[in-house]
Amino acid sequence: MRRGCPYGTHRVIEPKGVLPQPALKIDNDMEIYDNEILIDVKTLNIDSASFTQIKEQAKGNIEEIKRIMRSIVDERGKHQNPVTGSGGMLIGTVEKIGPALEGKTDLKVGDKIATLVSLSLTPLRIDEILEVRPDVDQVDIKGKAILFESGIYAVLPDDLPENLALSVLDVAGAPAQTAKLVKPGDTVVVIGGTGKSGMLCLYEAKKRAGVTGKVICIGSRDETIARVKEANLADVYIKANATNAVEILEKVREATNGEMADLVINTVNIPNTEMSSILITKDGGTVYFFSMATSFTKAALGAEGVGKDVTMLIGNGYTKGHAAIALELMRESKELRRIFEELYA
Amino acid sequence: MRRGCPYGTHRVIEPKGVLPQPALKIDNDMEIYDNEILIDVKTLNIDSASFTQIKEQAKGNIEEIKRIMRSIVDERGKHQNPVTGSGGMLIGTVEKIGPALEGKTDLKVGDKIATLVSLSLTPLRIDEILEVRPDVDQVDIKGKAILFESGIYAVLPDDLPENLALSVLDVAGAPAQTAKLVKPGDTVVVIGGTGKSGMLCLYEAKKRAGVTGKVICIGSRDETIARVKEANLADVYIKANATNAVEILEKVREATNGEMADLVINTVNIPNTEMSSILITKDGGTVYFFSMATSFTKAALGAEGVGKDVTMLIGNGYTKGHAAIALELMRESKELRRIFEELYA
Ligand SMILES: NC(=O)c1ccc[n+]([C@@H]2O[C@H](COP(=O)([O-])OP(=O)(O)OC[C@H]3O[C@@H](n4cnc5c(N)ncnc54)[C@H](OP(=O)(O)O)[C@@H]3O)[C@@H](O)[C@H]2O)c1
Ligand SMILES: NC(=O)c1ccc[n+]([C@@H]2O[C@H](COP(=O)([O-])OP(=O)(O)OC[C@H]3O[C@@H](n4cnc5c(N)ncnc54)[C@H](OP(=O)(O)O)[C@@H]3O)[C@@H](O)[C@H]2O)c1
Repeated sequence: MRRGCPYGTHRVIEPKGVLPQPALKIDNDMEIYDNEILIDVKTLNIDSASFTQIKEQAKGNIEEIKRIMRSIVDERGKHQNPVTGSGGMLIGTVEKIGPALEGKTDLKVGDKIATLVSLSLTPLRIDEILEVRPDVDQVDIKGKAILFESGIYAVLPDDLPENLALSVLDVAGAPAQTAKLVKPGDTVVVIGGTGKSGMLCLYEAKKRAGVTGKVICIGSRDETIARVKEANLADVYIKANATNAVEILEKVREATNGEMADLVINTVNIPNTEMSSILITKDGGTVYFFSMATSFTKAALGAEGVGKDVTMLIGNGYTKGHAAIALELMRESKELRRIFEELYA
Repeated sequence: MRRGCPYGTHRVIEPKGVLPQPALKIDNDMEIYDNEILIDVKTLNIDSASFTQIKEQAKGNIEEIKRIMRSIVDERGKHQNPVTGSGGMLIGTVEKIGPALEGKTDLKVGDKIATLVSLSLTPLRIDEILEVRPDVDQVDIKGKAILFESGIYAVLPDDLPENLALSVLDVAGAPAQTAKLVKPGDTVVVIGGTGKSGMLCLYEAKKRAGVTGKVICIGSRDETIARVKEANLADVYIKANATNAVEILEKVREATNGEMADLVINTVNIPNTEMSSILITKDGGTVYFFSMATSFTKAALGAEGVGKDVTMLIGNGYTKGHAAIALELMRESKELRRIFEELYA
């Protein structure tokens, strides 16, 4: 059996010397190396920014969505959207474990797991697309995938429906980072607070900011705002277009009596929202960009352009314990669980 | 006289509702609004990532570089490279000050200043390109520019040559952020430590990390490494290709006895160096991406893909006092000053 590198560089076809994530093409042959895990895939959870782009390109046509997805995997050996660069994650059953991992992993053949590394670096083979659920970004397939030695995963819990766990784990990094960043008394704005990761961030932020803090939810639709309001996830609700920096600035100024936010969390799934995020942050405050539609240069030059001394964080999808933290929210909050079961499970 | 918005939104032609930086086209008519400053421009300092791209496109031909630069400004009303999205900065003389700024600004007509906001949002008119200095990314022109009310600037100091001040101010954010991030005893790697911003970061890092720390310089050429070594700016020097993550990982592992870095500062001017930066950072450490060639998704998904719990910062070009901090380095270090005068002044 062939020996593999922990990071999966042995599967990179081109360009040479890079890791599987930035690679243009990786080897998706399903014969495993000695330190790989073979997964029988059940469901893909496509990253929201990626799926939004694919749906637009396909004009909503399901067969066309399937065709685009297959052509991405044919071309790259992984489901990495060439426009957004992003992936998503998957759930499936452990089918084979490389002998070099014996004693190193807790996994057993037959375990149901979710991979917590992006599909944008995961070798994937799609044999058949069974069902596309465009509203929740989930796609059931027949197919196989490979988890590298350095790849992280979560065994699916017994007490939560699979699809619910999948949709929560997809964005697990966001609430876990929120938990680290919010201090009591903080004013926190979640741009895209009406979305999947946004709602988890709102809940976590409200818990941490406490009674002396203020948590503000920004969304663009009456319907989604009403849902979040009913569940009481924020203190203030703003309906506005996140790409309109001037509108967002004025509305947040009003909601904060001109003080602006200590922390802004950006969880939208559309481009051109960097300036809105920067302008509503206090000098010395922090912007946490979780959105995969964030442009590095727009953020860096935008902040400089208006002379804003703010800390801007790139939303690392991983932080220690993120899966456990995110799943626990489904047990902690009946309201969140109800919404997530309705929308995603 | 027309009234302007502090952020310059009154000059945005398209798309509407955005700020001048992300805008595709802004109005570069040199009739000022009541809160604007008109500058008689002397020299443009084109951002390194941008100029590298332009030089490549022009195959090094000076006339072609001029043509590309003029076509960018014709099309956008500002010098924003459509490929890299970045700008640069300029020096010139204050020619007119809008009446609404009276009592609000310390500037007087005739002051020589450097703008510290990016050219990617600065209304600019080029009347003539006088000289292109491709080695230092500087271009002398006849032309005018506008500084918005929120725009930051520095009055040029008397004791430093203009071109020297310009080249230091171009990257002023980098050493100022380094000063904030480095703690005594830290292991710090500067990828691109042989470059302009890189050398300033090395110097600042060595000062802060102190005798118990370790500062590592990575560059790709013998010549540039020899220069940095002679000036004793780092403790360890590594020659390697920053796009080859595996090579960088192995060399830094060796240099740090497997401990890796507390802080990695990325100041290269080429794409695809995110993974190198992430892999050589300790769990719990920080990556500071100053390079404008950084891809947001490659960084976010790359860290997740290898399960690295690192804080990743978007290099905000501005932080309080950055101009003063950077210029002071030219007075503090004879070595740095000598190199900078040789290379850039
Ligand atoms: N590793 C990572 O960092 C990582 C991992 C997973 C996902 N992500 C990214 O996180 C982002 C959010 O993912 P998600 O699953 O939470 O997406 P989602 O459920 O689709 O939520 C998107 C949010 O954006 C809001 N939005 C869209 N257009 C808007 C506009 N013009 N103005 C204001 N709000 C607008 C939506 O609000 P309305 O519905 O009210 O319009 C909604 O709240 C995506 O960009 C995704 O790529 C990152
Ligand atoms: N607001 C902001 O955040 C801001 C402001 C200004 C500039 N910047 C960005 O900062 C970056 C650096 O600017 P600068 O003026 O300091 O540029 P510079 O002087 O041209 O330095 C570039 C550095 O990259 C290194 N490099 C290039 N290719 C490499 C490779 N394959 N392997 C290893 N090292 C390599 C060079 O090393 P060798 O010469 O040894 O090859 C050099 O040290 C640029 O991307 C620029 O856009 C950002």
